[in-house]
Amino acid sequence: MFRDNSGRGGAVQSVRMRSLVLIGHGSHLNGESAVAVYRYAELIRQRGLFDEVIEGYWKEEPSLRQVLKTTASTDVTVIPMFISEGYFTETVIPREMGLGHQGPVPPEGVARVIGGRTVRYTLPYGVHPSMTDVILARAREVLPDANPEDTALIVLGHGTTRNENSNRIVYQNADRIRESGQFAEVQALFLDEDPKVGTWPETVRSPRVVVVPFFASEGWHTLETIPEDMGLTGTVTDFTENPHGHQQVFYARPVGTHAAVADVILHLAEEASGAGGPGGDTERGHEAAWQAFLKGARAGLRVGEVLVTPELGVFELRNALDEGRPGADLTTLVTPEGVRDQVRFTDGGEHRPVHTLRNLPRGWRAVLSEADLRRAMHYVYPAVIEETYAHDCHALRPTPWATTARRQTGIYAKVQKATPAQVEHVAQDVCTGCLRTRLWAGHKLTQSFLNGVPGGIPCAEACTFVVAEVREEVSGKRGGGGHSHSH
Amino acid sequence: MFRDNSGRGGAVQSVRMRSLVLIGHGSHLNGESAVAVYRYAELIRQRGLFDEVIEGYWKEEPSLRQVLKTTASTDVTVIPMFISEGYFTETVIPREMGLGHQGPVPPEGVARVIGGRTVRYTLPYGVHPSMTDVILARAREVLPDANPEDTALIVLGHGTTRNENSNRIVYQNADRIRESGQFAEVQALFLDEDPKVGTWPETVRSPRVVVVPFFASEGWHTLETIPEDMGLTGTVTDFTENPHGHQQVFYARPVGTHAAVADVILHLAEEASGAGGPGGDTERGHEAAWQAFLKGARAGLRVGEVLVTPELGVFELRNALDEGRPGADLTTLVTPEGVRDQVRFTDGGEHRPVHTLRNLPRGWRAVLSEADLRRAMHYVYPAVIEETYAHDCHALRPTPWATTARRQTGIYAKVQKATPAQVEHVAQDVCTGCLRTRLWAGHKLTQSFLNGVPGGIPCAEACTFVVAEVREEVSGKRGGGGHSHSH
Repeated sequence: MFRDNSGRGGAVQSVRMRSLVLIGHGSHLNGESAVAVYRYAELIRQRGLFDEVIEGYWKEEPSLRQVLKTTASTDVTVIPMFISEGYFTETVIPREMGLGHQGPVPPEGVARVIGGRTVRYTLPYGVHPSMTDVILARAREVLPDANPEDTALIVLGHGTTRNENSNRIVYQNADRIRESGQFAEVQALFLDEDPKVGTWPETVRSPRVVVVPFFASEGWHTLETIPEDMGLTGTVTDFTENPHGHQQVFYARPVGTHAAVADVILHLAEEASGAGGPGGDTERGHEAAWQAFLKGARAGLRVGEVLVTPELGVFELRNALDEGRPGADLTTLVTPEGVRDQVRFTDGGEHRPVHTLRNLPRGWRAVLSEADLRRAMHYVYPAVIEETYAHDCHALRPTPWATTARRQTGIYAKVQKATPAQVEHVAQDVCTGCLRTRLWAGHKLTQSFLNGVPGGIPCAEACTFVVAEVREEVSGKRGGGGHSHSH
Repeated sequence: MFRDNSGRGGAVQSVRMRSLVLIGHGSHLNGESAVAVYRYAELIRQRGLFDEVIEGYWKEEPSLRQVLKTTASTDVTVIPMFISEGYFTETVIPREMGLGHQGPVPPEGVARVIGGRTVRYTLPYGVHPSMTDVILARAREVLPDANPEDTALIVLGHGTTRNENSNRIVYQNADRIRESGQFAEVQALFLDEDPKVGTWPETVRSPRVVVVPFFASEGWHTLETIPEDMGLTGTVTDFTENPHGHQQVFYARPVGTHAAVADVILHLAEEASGAGGPGGDTERGHEAAWQAFLKGARAGLRVGEVLVTPELGVFELRNALDEGRPGADLTTLVTPEGVRDQVRFTDGGEHRPVHTLRNLPRGWRAVLSEADLRRAMHYVYPAVIEETYAHDCHALRPTPWATTARRQTGIYAKVQKATPAQVEHVAQDVCTGCLRTRLWAGHKLTQSFLNGVPGGIPCAEACTFVVAEVREEVSGKRGGGGHSHSH
């Protein structure tokens, strides 16, 4: 199954290609949300089973609306990196990606042809049966010699009244492990529904108890709520006066951050409807966009705030404000991931959910091969190459605000109530700091960086950041002067 | 007294030179504050009596700390554009400009040699005796046929318990006009002290009454408080049942915005200590800085976010993000004042008190002669050419935060309580968006735009914007994430 991906960044090729897209929630607020997805993408990239592994987010970039455009092949598998089914996997992601599907996703996933690409959308990783292996792996980490004589396992779920699937998966995993006979007893307990986690001293009898949180990541629940509800003081806690006598609890880390989740992802991808096919072709529009960029890069190019300079077979990337600074004064990066991590925060350490805001950090340069330059530019300005090329070919269709607003659900549904003046007020504040030209508000972009205007980057539709700010505006939570430095 | 200023922007010259500096308060909040000062500077520039007229501000740029550096000659007269003496004219301005003087300024002003320049600091324009002429001019505007038979004049001051000079000037003006015999009666009335403005129907007997507000500009007092206290409904108001019978009130505009204030300024400048001398020379450091800039400009230069391009004997200035855009797509400006007004606001219409913030508006270009290019650059990046040249010559001395903090008085004195962590927290937030490199925080700048690094601009000391934000921080009024877009 291994395929040669050495030509990943090169010219159009006849080799069959497959793209994998991992979808995370992302955050407008902090940069940690995206890190787990980066990590899985890297693990899977290392296996070499896909020609590319792309990350996409609801609240970061490339956004759900953009991410398909950024894939190089016509064969795309999309996996939601969520621990359970719910609003995001069943409503938000399919809607924003234009899958023409809403509601529960069948076990074989949903397959659609979107803009010339065959897109397979799977269930979230957390519901795959092989998560049982991840639970067992986490259990082994804290208690390698667990045995059916004296060891109990608690699979600990969040539980919720909103989505019954959430607890069903925890029960299924507990059932499978119980049937395997590896533990004396196996219990499914929950934070927010019965049977509650605090009841464990009554119901669990074994002297040794392994607790594995069925959670996506470390956080408030795994670090605060669970230890408090269970009376845990660390990885190992002794309880000397429990109803069933002395008990020792071994507290494992959450399943979602285990490296074995990468295997779960690959299982999902292989089992997705039609995934056994021959793979796709190079997506022509995508490749043409990058060839146009590379043509410019080979002559030296300014894109937004970055400067691309050809250098003896490699390329140098830096903030244009740093033009001319000696390399020794700058942090030199040599990988796309290094660039990614550099541009995720401003020089002041603030998270940059919108990469085209005019606050690209300074003080670094990257020296990259042509293939790596492509990936690095994707991280610096996600979807910008593809969207700008499409714009220049008159193929980028703007989405008016009203259409964007009508699509919103949940807490964002109220943006439909925003007046044009409110939307413009927010845009005046938020979009002013952005390089993009708001085609969705009727603004015109005549020339782009592909023909010599560094700041020429189109904005086809309001991003989730603007949507969130409009929601604040409608709720009366934004000040008159916005969040600018108005002192 | 007219002098040839055609060589203003040229090479070092032997002609005796004089610089006039007008000081306004300025504002971090809105762009209107500076406009009155711009207007007077333009009026005086047109008279051609000074080789240059420079504006400086407490809360905008060039700041009080920078403005002397931006003057081209060694003979500088500084006039505070305030209507009365007080905290700003006696404490803040002399301190920030390094005049080595505090407290009341004598009638002949204060003269000092500062950094090779002879600097004369005068009283504020409002206390000059020729303001009497401005009051009369305002009175004539609303009632051209005022006469000693039937017309009273009310000179209306603010009054305050904090500074007795404030009312003294109003009384002096009223006395002078009374002595001239042009009105039947002349009264000094006040908003905030006795005799209060509301008492006029009892004390003023004439059938026609002219009211001239001795205020710096139109504002809340002239538009709301005074009309309300006096019962005015417009420029002319009839009172039919007053104690002294029928009276007609003619409400004039405030004295401070009258064009004749330009004459008052010139009187002050002429009467300043030693002003009759031969004038000064070209300040060598200043001229060297601009020659270094022009040398770069003649070859094409990037300074911060702007691009300077030589074009057949003139220069073109534009936002570097607009490089390559056809001129027809851009608003073409042809005067330094046009550039000034363009760069005072962001593309979102927000005021830009700090010009080195990375939010220079786009969509314009300026075509300028060499002399006008100098003035335009002064408006785009005030004091940046001078400070950067000094830095490159190892002549820019950074002022550590502790020194800046110790200098603060009034509501800003409390910044002395800020911990280093608080100052750094604010700087991380505020200064991140700024092009300048914080030498005052120990950061190093190795190369500047004068040797090819567009973003290389030094910051010698914390600006008033940072000081104000630190004050908010110390007061607990800043949020954790600052004023950034953190949603």
